[in-house]
Order: sequence, then C-alpha cells, then structure tokens
Amino acid sequence: MKLKFAMVGGALGSFMGPVHRIAATLDGQAELVAGSFSRKAEKNRAAAEAWHVDPDRVYEDYRELLAAEADNLDYVVICTPNNTHVEIATAAIEAGLAVSSDKPLGIGSAECDEPASLVDSRAVPFMVTHNYSGYPMIKEARAMRAAGDLGDIHRIVVEMPQGWIQGIITLSGEEPALWRMDPAVVGPSLATADVGTHALHLAEHVTGLTAIAVDADASYLLSTSPLENDINILLRFDNDAAGILTVSEFATGDRNPFRIRVYGTKAGIEWVQETPEYLIVKEPGGNERRLFRGHSPDAESAKWSRIPMGHPEGYLEAFANLYGEFHRAVRAWRGGAPIVGGNRGYDYPGVAEGVRGLRFVEAVLANLAGTDKWTEF
Amino acid sequence: MKLKFAMVGGALGSFMGPVHRIAATLDGQAELVAGSFSRKAEKNRAAAEAWHVDPDRVYEDYRELLAAEADNLDYVVICTPNNTHVEIATAAIEAGLAVSSDKPLGIGSAECDEPASLVDSRAVPFMVTHNYSGYPMIKEARAMRAAGDLGDIHRIVVEMPQGWIQGIITLSGEEPALWRMDPAVVGPSLATADVGTHALHLAEHVTGLTAIAVDADASYLLSTSPLENDINILLRFDNDAAGILTVSEFATGDRNPFRIRVYGTKAGIEWVQETPEYLIVKEPGGNERRLFRGHSPDAESAKWSRIPMGHPEGYLEAFANLYGEFHRAVRAWRGGAPIVGGNRGYDYPGVAEGVRGLRFVEAVLANLAGTDKWTEF
Amino acid sequence: MKLKFAMVGGALGSFMGPVHRIAATLDGQAELVAGSFSRKAEKNRAAAEAWHVDPDRVYEDYRELLAAEADNLDYVVICTPNNTHVEIATAAIEAGLAVSSDKPLGIGSAECDEPASLVDSRAVPFMVTHNYSGYPMIKEARAMRAAGDLGDIHRIVVEMPQGWIQGIITLSGEEPALWRMDPAVVGPSLATADVGTHALHLAEHVTGLTAIAVDADASYLLSTSPLENDINILLRFDNDAAGILTVSEFATGDRNPFRIRVYGTKAGIEWVQETPEYLIVKEPGGNERRLFRGHSPDAESAKWSRIPMGHPEGYLEAFANLYGEFHRAVRAWRGGAPIVGGNRGYDYPGVAEGVRGLRFVEAVLANLAGTDKWTEF
Amino acid sequence: MKLKFAMVGGALGSFMGPVHRIAATLDGQAELVAGSFSRKAEKNRAAAEAWHVDPDRVYEDYRELLAAEADNLDYVVICTPNNTHVEIATAAIEAGLAVSSDKPLGIGSAECDEPASLVDSRAVPFMVTHNYSGYPMIKEARAMRAAGDLGDIHRIVVEMPQGWIQGIITLSGEEPALWRMDPAVVGPSLATADVGTHALHLAEHVTGLTAIAVDADASYLLSTSPLENDINILLRFDNDAAGILTVSEFATGDRNPFRIRVYGTKAGIEWVQETPEYLIVKEPGGNERRLFRGHSPDAESAKWSRIPMGHPEGYLEAFANLYGEFHRAVRAWRGGAPIVGGNRGYDYPGVAEGVRGLRFVEAVLANLAGTDKWTEF
Repeated sequence: MKLKFAMVGGALGSFMGPVHRIAATLDGQAELVAGSFSRKAEKNRAAAEAWHVDPDRVYEDYRELLAAEADNLDYVVICTPNNTHVEIATAAIEAGLAVSSDKPLGIGSAECDEPASLVDSRAVPFMVTHNYSGYPMIKEARAMRAAGDLGDIHRIVVEMPQGWIQGIITLSGEEPALWRMDPAVVGPSLATADVGTHALHLAEHVTGLTAIAVDADASYLLSTSPLENDINILLRFDNDAAGILTVSEFATGDRNPFRIRVYGTKAGIEWVQETPEYLIVKEPGGNERRLFRGHSPDAESAKWSRIPMGHPEGYLEAFANLYGEFHRAVRAWRGGAPIVGGNRGYDYPGVAEGVRGLRFVEAVLANLAGTDKWTEF
Repeated sequence: MKLKFAMVGGALGSFMGPVHRIAATLDGQAELVAGSFSRKAEKNRAAAEAWHVDPDRVYEDYRELLAAEADNLDYVVICTPNNTHVEIATAAIEAGLAVSSDKPLGIGSAECDEPASLVDSRAVPFMVTHNYSGYPMIKEARAMRAAGDLGDIHRIVVEMPQGWIQGIITLSGEEPALWRMDPAVVGPSLATADVGTHALHLAEHVTGLTAIAVDADASYLLSTSPLENDINILLRFDNDAAGILTVSEFATGDRNPFRIRVYGTKAGIEWVQETPEYLIVKEPGGNERRLFRGHSPDAESAKWSRIPMGHPEGYLEAFANLYGEFHRAVRAWRGGAPIVGGNRGYDYPGVAEGVRGLRFVEAVLANLAGTDKWTEF
Repeated sequence: MKLKFAMVGGALGSFMGPVHRIAATLDGQAELVAGSFSRKAEKNRAAAEAWHVDPDRVYEDYRELLAAEADNLDYVVICTPNNTHVEIATAAIEAGLAVSSDKPLGIGSAECDEPASLVDSRAVPFMVTHNYSGYPMIKEARAMRAAGDLGDIHRIVVEMPQGWIQGIITLSGEEPALWRMDPAVVGPSLATADVGTHALHLAEHVTGLTAIAVDADASYLLSTSPLENDINILLRFDNDAAGILTVSEFATGDRNPFRIRVYGTKAGIEWVQETPEYLIVKEPGGNERRLFRGHSPDAESAKWSRIPMGHPEGYLEAFANLYGEFHRAVRAWRGGAPIVGGNRGYDYPGVAEGVRGLRFVEAVLANLAGTDKWTEF
Repeated sequence: MKLKFAMVGGALGSFMGPVHRIAATLDGQAELVAGSFSRKAEKNRAAAEAWHVDPDRVYEDYRELLAAEADNLDYVVICTPNNTHVEIATAAIEAGLAVSSDKPLGIGSAECDEPASLVDSRAVPFMVTHNYSGYPMIKEARAMRAAGDLGDIHRIVVEMPQGWIQGIITLSGEEPALWRMDPAVVGPSLATADVGTHALHLAEHVTGLTAIAVDADASYLLSTSPLENDINILLRFDNDAAGILTVSEFATGDRNPFRIRVYGTKAGIEWVQETPEYLIVKEPGGNERRLFRGHSPDAESAKWSRIPMGHPEGYLEAFANLYGEFHRAVRAWRGGAPIVGGNRGYDYPGVAEGVRGLRFVEAVLANLAGTDKWTEF
C-alpha cells in the first residue's frame, strides 16, 4: 500500500509545493490524499483540483486538516512560510504523524526546542529538506571522502549565487515585495537562512567535517528589506580546514550554479548543481577525471539513480531521493521501529541538521553585529 | 479524477518500464492501476509489488489484461520488445482504449497499416514516444524556427553516439546477448531503428523540414548480431538543406550526448541532451547566446517547465511533457472529441510519426543493400 | 646564428602572413630578413616597415627576391594564393632554398609532380603547413594511439565547421568576393581544399590510418561562386573503420570548433580546437578523463609545450611547433644531411602529405561528379 | 628599427624568462641582444646559445651588463627573484634605460620609494607585468564596464586557485624547497604577493574600483615554509561593493583557473583564464551571452588580437599585449616624450600599480597579525 500524506501550504504558483508533491510521489510509494494548500479558499480549491485531491479532503487550515485526517495519514508535508513551520510540525507530531518540513526548521533555534524534544520522545520520522544532498554525485563525493580518496581536507569553497531579486527588479521595474524578504515571516535573515543553510549542510554532508567559526560580511542591496541578500563568509572547520561560503540573491544573471569544491591532500573534487550528472575529480598533477552518475553498478551514485547515465536526472529526482529514505523510515516506524532524532539510520536530514542550520544563521548574525573577527558556534 | 492506465511490459530492471511509469504519473494526472509487466510470473509480481499495484489486477498476458480491465482503463502503455508493439496496440484500440507505445511503432511499415487505419476509424489517442522532442529547449528551438529567427535552414547535423555495447563487452568480457540485438525481435535494423528514428524525428520536429533522401554507410562490429550498430547517413531535406545523421552503439565511452545543430541564414542553434537546460544560439558574427529554460514567463520553454531555471530538469520531465499532451488528448477523447491520426491538435508524436520512422529505416536499409548513391523516401 | 628567411605574400591584413611570421620567429630560431609581401607596392612597403625588414631587401616579386637574396637565405615562406604555390616553391628549391608553403600544396595533384621530384632530387626541407597537427594534445593523442591505448579504431568523426561566409554576408549585406572563392585562383574546390584537407590530415595523423574511399555530398550556397562551401563526406579507412568528415563555410556562427573524435575498442578520444589544452579520453564505462597539456614531464604533450598547464597556449604556438621541427631539419640540411621527401625524420607535413590532400580533393570532386556511391583513392 | 633589450634573470628552465622573451619579441618590434640570464655561468651561456644571443654580450651580473651595454639598449627585462627587483630596476633607470620588471615590484612598499621617485624624475617607461590584464576579453570587459553596460557594481569575486605545491609533493614525495617559498627571497608573503596581487590588479582593472579594506584568513600548509600558501580575503571597495579574493597554492589539481566575476545592476560578467577567448555576460533574466574575441572589427577585443576568433590565442599573446603598449611608450620616450609614472598614457601597469600590490599585501599581513575584523588600506 502506498503511504498517505497531506500537504500544508504549497499551492499552485509556489515553487516548493509542486516540488514536494512530485518528489514525494515520483517513485510510486506515496499518495497525496488531503491538504490545506492555501489560506485563500480559491487557491486551496485550485490546487486540489489540479492534483485530483478529493474536495472533501481539503481544509481551511492545518488544524482542521489534522483533526479530520490524522487517522488516515502517514505524514504531513509542510511548505508554508518559515514562521509557521514549527507550530505546524509540532501539531502534526502530536497528532501522531511523521513530518517532512521544508527548510529552515524554524526562524530561530530556540523555538525548535519543543519540536526537537517531541521528535525525540515520539521517535517519529522528521525530515528537513536540505535537498541538495540528495544528488547522486553528492552521495558519490561523500563516499569517496569517507573512503579516504581525498586524503586530509584542507580547503572548502561552497557558493550559491542567485540573481533572482535583481532579475525581478530589472524585468518588472519594481522592488519585489515577497514574504521571503519580510522579517516578520522569515525571521532575522534572508540569504543566510534561505540558501546559506543549504550550502553549509552540503559542505558538512560531503566532507564529514563541522564548521566551528564564521567571519562574515553582508550586503543589503536594492531593496527596502532590512535583511541581508548577499553574504560572504570565511569558515574554519573542526580539523582546521579553511573555507569560503558565499551566497547571493543579487548575483545578476546567476540562475543557481550551486557549486562545491573540496580540496584534500590526495585529490580535489568539484560539483556544480547546474551540471549535476558528473563529479570532477582533480588529480594532483592537474588532470581531471569526470565521474558520471551510475558509472558502474557498484558506484555509490548508482544506488541513488533511476535511469542510466546519458539520460539526465535533476533536481526533482534528487529531492525524491530524500523522500525515498524518508519513506523507508516511515514504513519502519509504522512497523514499530523508533526513529531516533527523526532520521537515525536513514540518509535524510533530520532535526539536528535543521537546528544546526539555525545556529549557523545565528552565529553569522552575531558576527555581523559585533566587532570580533571570528564567531565560534 | 486521475486517468487510469495499465502497462504491458516494462518490469523492474528494464529501462523503459520505469521511465513510462514515472513520466505518466509525474504530474499527478494518471494512475497505474493494472499491468502485465512480464511474461515471467515472478517479475510480473515483483513489479506490481514495487509499484503498489493491486495483485488482483496483474495479468499473465495482455489479452487477459484487456479482457478483464478494458472498462476500468483509459489507456495502455506498451513497453514490450519491438515485434509485439503492433499486435498489442491493435488489441488495445479494439478494446476501446487509447495507447502509448514505446518506439518504434513496429518492425516494418507494412505491419502498421492495420493499426493506422484503426486509429483513424476510431479517432483514438495514440502516442509513439519519440520523447526527446519533449525537452523544453527543443520546444523553444522549434518556436524560434517557426518564428523565422533562424532564416532559411541549409545545414542540419544530428548525432546520437552511444557506447553501450562496447561498455558491456569491455566490462564483462562477453558479447552482449540482448533482445535489442536479435533480428527476430527487433526486425532488420538495430541502430537505425532503435535510435536513428529518434534522431530523424528530432531533426524534423525542430526544423519543420522533411528528409527526402538518404545515402548511408553502416558498420557491423564486435558482435555476432547481423544488425548494424553504427550508421552514418547523409541526408537531403525537402528544401534542399543538407544533413548528417549519425548514430552509434559502439562510440566507446559516449553516454548519450544526443546533439542537434541547425544552421540557417540568420542564426544557428545547438542543443545537447546531456546539458538540456539551455539552447545555444549562434550569431552570424560568432558570438553565442545561451537561452535557459523558462528565461521569461512568455518563453516557449516556460510552458513546458515545472520548476525555475537553475534547478535542473531532465529526461523524465521531458518524457512527462509528452504524457502531459497525451493526457489532454485522452481527456478530450473521453469527453467525446475525435483525435485524428492519434494526435491531431496535440503536441506529441502519433501514428504518422511512427510510420515515418519505419519508412526511414526501410530507406536506409534499401540504400545499404543497393549500389545507388541516394535513396529517396 | 638564427636561420634567415624571406616571405612571399602574407602582407598586413592577410590572415596567414602574420601567422607564419610569428610562428617562424616565436622560438628565437629564425629571422625574417627579406620579402615580397604583396604585388601592391604600398602594401609591400607597409609590411616591411611594420616588421622592421630593411627596405632594401623588399622586392616586387618572388623572382627578384630569389635572384637577389638566395645566398643570404635559408628558406622561403610562401603564403600567396593557391595557384602560385607550386611555381614559387619550384623556383625557391631551384635557387637552393628550403621551403615552407601554406597549404594546399597546389591546385591539383598533377602540377605537383615537378616540385615533388625536385624535392626528392635535392633532398631539401619542404613543409606544407597542415598546422593543426602541431597542437600538443594532438601529439599526445597520436602517442596514445601508437601505444595501443585506444585499441582497434573503428569510428572517426572529424568536423571543421566555420560560418565566415555567412558572417560576411550578414554583417555587410553583400556577397563576399574573395580570392578564396575564385576558381581561377583556388582551383576546382573551396571547402574541401581549403579546410577539408586539414581535417583529413589531422584524422590520419592521429589515427595512423589511411582513408581509402569517399562518398560525398556538397552544397553551393549563398554565393555566385561555383565552388562548394559545405561538404559532408562518408569515409572508409584502410582498416575498414568508418568515418565522417564534414566542413562548412556556412555553418552560421561557428567560429572554428575543429573537432576530432576517434573511437577504439579500448577507449575513445575527443579534442576540440577551441579548447585545445586538453584531450578527453572516454572510458568504456562512460567516465571521462581530461588530460591537460604537460601533465607530466614525460608526457608527449610536454615535449611540444613552452609554458606550464593553466597558462593557455593556442594556435600560434601549435603552428610554431611545425616550424620548430622544420628549423631542425633546415639546420641538419645546412649541415649536409639529405632530407628525403622534404620531411623524412622530422615531425612536420612534407610533400607526400601535400599531394595526399590534393588527391583527396580530386576523389571528392570525382565522387560528386559521378553516380557511384563510393570513390576509392 | 627594432628596439633592443637585455634580460636579467630568466634562464632556461625558469617559467618567466622564456615568457618575457617570447612576449617581448612576438610582434617583431624588439630584439633580445644581451643578457645576464643566470648567476651560474653554465646556465647563463646555455640561455644565450639557445636564443642566439652573441656570447660576447652575455654578462656575469647586471652591473657588468649595464656598464657595457647601456648605450646599446632601449630597455631591460628583469625576471630575477623578488628581492633583487628594486635594486636592478634602480640601476637600469640610472643607466638611462626603460624597465620591464616581473611582479611584484619589490618585497615591501617602503623599498619602492626610491625607484618610484626615480621613475618620476626621469619620466622613463616602467612596466610591472601584471600580465592577466592583457587578455583581449579582459579589455573588452573593462570597456563594457566603462560604457556603463554593467550598471552599478555591487559584487566581485576573483579567484586564482593553483595546486602546484601539492602537485610537487604528491609527485615527488618531498617538500618543495623553492626560492619562491623562502622569505629571505620573496619577503613576508607567498600566496598573497605571488598571485594575490595579480588578482587584485585584475579586479581593479576591470571594475575601475579601488579596494579599501580587507578581512583575511590564511593557511600555512604541507610545508615548513613560514609563509601563507592559501588565503581567503573579504574585500570592500570604494563604492561599498563587497568582494571575495581567494588564491591558493594548495588547491589540489587546480591548474590556474584564474576567474573573475563582476555583478552590476544591469549585468554580470564572468571570465576564466583557462578559456580566455570569451567573456560570459549574464543577463538579469538568466540568459547568457558569450562574446568572443574580435567579434566585430570595432570590438575592444579586436584591438588586442592578432588572429581571428576560432584560432585560440592565450597567455603569451596577452603578455605580448603589455609589451605592445610598453614598446609604444619606449618609442615615444626615445622620441623625447616624458612618460609620467612609468606608464601614463599607455595601457600597461606601472609603478603605481606595483606599489599598490605591495600595500595590499601589507594590509593583508597586518589584518592577519591583528584582531580587528577589517584593515583599511
């Protein structure tokens, strides 16, 4: 039987709603059966109709949804604005359901104590969708690093430049007024929380290292929003490796060439999200090897693939890889197995990864507010 | 309500079965409810279990399936070996169902007369999945050409080099013994029928031209199969444009960099399947413009996209674009509208495109068998 | 002492004149001391002045030049229009000088009998500048092939698409009227002779194979010139490998992405002139290795390099590599060593390579004029 | 008449000696006539022989050279280790010659006061070879910025990752012991002085902005050298644009993909030294335009080109572009024109650019030594 889930938020026209819907159902393991897609009745109905959800199972808000459907569901997908994530997640867990929440986990680490302890006490699957870690060649990079193929890591550069705000202004002639830029909705950080947390997660996921200090410089441009939309951060990791993490929403013309480079004593690696199907391995003498997804049946990337190399997979398939693991956890949990930390034993980001992202944001904000060169976290 | 479909063939472990299943369901418009996935009972059951199809709705062969399920289905997906396509398609139409058939339509154009006239008389949706035409930037290329942005077209190069046979031999030390190489199953052509038809379809889809003559050279390598696995073809189109069409299954190390270049008096374009998210526009002075999927809300590619640029879509989404059009046709047909030629009014390949591919194969084989330089078709 | 040379043709504003001048002097082994750069006195003087050639050593035509300077020179560089190559080369050899001639050797193979037998009898260095073979990564490719790293070669694709005629028309609104398009000057072929001979030479240089048959299709576009400006050729080589050779001067927007792909049973290779610093090695399983110029001190490419990888070399350095070998031959010849065939023992193209190019052109023209599918040569 | 120059340092086997020799002579405007190529007599002789310099004009040290040759020379090229640049340059100016010095100008800004004031008082051409600014597409980028095509600049990223130290260790198994890593020879900085100054120069050359503050993090890895070999720097420019400048000599496998990205309100641009022939222009909507060298006769890049697009130029040609301007200045100066600041009126880096590089290094070292977040300079 397919798992049953409902969505809160994510109506037509949003970016992440359709993404979660497709990613959760791509492998035929789960079924969208109910939802509260929007506070606006018309948008709520439109999403249900577009996705063939029974109109009787569409609700005005998440409370109604949980009250009526908790017994019919396995999990809830949360893709509402940031400031509602914690409240909805808490209610869903309390209703006995597993949770897949879009990132960030919340708007501050303090508000996550309650859901974190709930997840612990209920031992329920809980996913925070730092989805870039789901790409097959990222899994391959992680496996290479774990096997020692990179040697000792001493340099990490991770970049996520986007030009969307600039694009909107240039194309429309107006300043964007989006909830993503409103501190009342997204909390005290824009670029760092929105995409910087993805970048940190990917760097730590691939390298197995932990960032321990930040030295940051932020810009606040082309907008009346008080939040930073471009940030350059120097990092130090727990093995003393140096790093750069830079994200921007004003990198004119950049679509989203999320890029990670890791340099070790034996080899360097480079991966770029816009060409996700291969991993560049840099040999000390200067030659490159490009490993392609599924290059051998035993390759780590083969385990995270659906179709052969030469037939491009992309963002949705990577996102679906997170759901694949999550579904395994949900079935195990439905079968009686406790899921520690929301993800223990399964390869998707859980509560700890979500909290860590928020602590990183807080360290960056503290660094920006003070005069110290470095802020540890 | 979602449309209901069954699959014939395409069990786990096949390439195209999972592709059709994902592509048909990606947008939440259709549901796999029954199947005869394999002649082998165990594989048949395994597919049903993996995809959560009710075991009572899994059948030993397509006849049983149609007998039991015709009233509960909207369409049948055929991904069996080539020599059974026509027979299954004919039976499905006669059972009152629409059909989505993997290519080629059959193993010779003569055997397609019956299904073609059935499709005509029943006016039922019929799709042959020349899926590469579903890529958003291919649609954009076609739109540019139709708008006259390329000027008069005088040169076309289309390539589909693959190295899979060589890979298999090298990695396993043995000659592959696959049904794809067996003339009893695939008919008198391997490379030309299997992928050459894709290449021809794409060239004609983008340019709006019709190839009218071929001058071909084939190789029969590294295999005891009597069928060609590498073919180089000179083409002439109906406007006298010259072309090259080359496909190979022995292009060592090539994954599938399906590439099309079209040169007109105003501009050239180039698209490569392994980097499908952009179209290169070549300006007469030598500069390039790279147009990215969904570059403006009005761009043709935006109409065939699910997520924003910078978040890679790929093969499955392109395949799903064909199903999106097919589903629109099936709903219209269910609503009483006749669908002429299996696809009239909808943007997916129908019977004519399928027959055309087979005629192309036959022209190439005739050219290879004779001494004439050119064979018209 | 530096070698002394004079140039015939190649004034300012020409493409090849400055190229030969730079390439011949790049390594500090030779000195331009005299010339007859143009039939037009003003252009002749201007070149001399620009390049600091003594005005007393500038001559109205090559005969005067040879009469006055033969004793002061080691060699003559010929970069006049095609129909004068043979006559000037013959006179220079008769004057006791070595020759570096731009390609093609002449406008037909018959007219080359005399200079060929002169070269033989005088045993004098004679270079025909098929310069693309001078790229370091081409030398590396040849060495890999010679070492057996590619296995048996079964597929070769060589392309040299250019869009210059189209660029001229589009930018100027007029048909180009260049001597390169005038059959009285360049002989009976344009694209095949002008760049097709480069492509054939490169294919044979890298693979060590010999093309033995052609099946060609030519176009005559956008011009009142009767000569072909776009040609697609199917090839067969002496080991039965199949090939495609395609060149165009109407490939709108293509700058000159001269590309060669060679596929063997063990590996494939690919090199593109616009990114000349690396060679792609295609492994049977689908991964790629990119070898960079000078990747180890022992690499073949290191022997043809001036500066380390990461500091791009290009066209002029590759051209200078031919001159480096030619200068070694000239010094040996000045020291008394006979140079058989114009190049025996040295790694630059000689008379045989020049004649072979013309025979290839003649085979292509014969194939186009007749009705046979294949023309052997 | 060609200009006459001598070289100090730069024997065979060095990187920069052959580079200067080729770059200075590439266009036939200057002639190497004397030298003191090495302190080691044998290497000194070998260079002279290889480059056909009269053995009577080869000297044991620069003092002898200047004493004997000052009247026969126009300029001196200095490519000795860093700690001798100032002394040799000063002596050459005092001997009445122009100077082309490899960078950095010296090992500290203080020691440059004397040569700087000498250059001023003598009004003699003086070049410091920050050669990357000589690439045609860098000139094009600068021209676009100057024309306002980028709008207001708000983000700059410049990277120069190299892996040479790592390569040496890995390939040889030993720690490198090169003068480039010895503080007695190169002064108090390795990576910042050696390549960081190139990166800063390029950023300021393209943007027309001036960096005013640095916040740096350095690493000292895999070596007993006390100098930094990897440095990540946050920058602020005089218009408040934010920047990142990062250089490394331990970026395993990176050859030298020197890359600059500049983002303005109207467009972004990107250029990578390993593919120097085009400039990526990033449009706000996410499309790219790739401008190729010499794309029109009036393009800025056309003025800095020797051969047409599609025929790659590289590092040596870019370096020669600096010499082209320098030669113009030397001829003007020989004709009586004063050259203010060593370069006023000509497009090559002079004393001010050299001093600025050293001040940047000093600011970075001060920042690393202190506890302040930002150090202004």
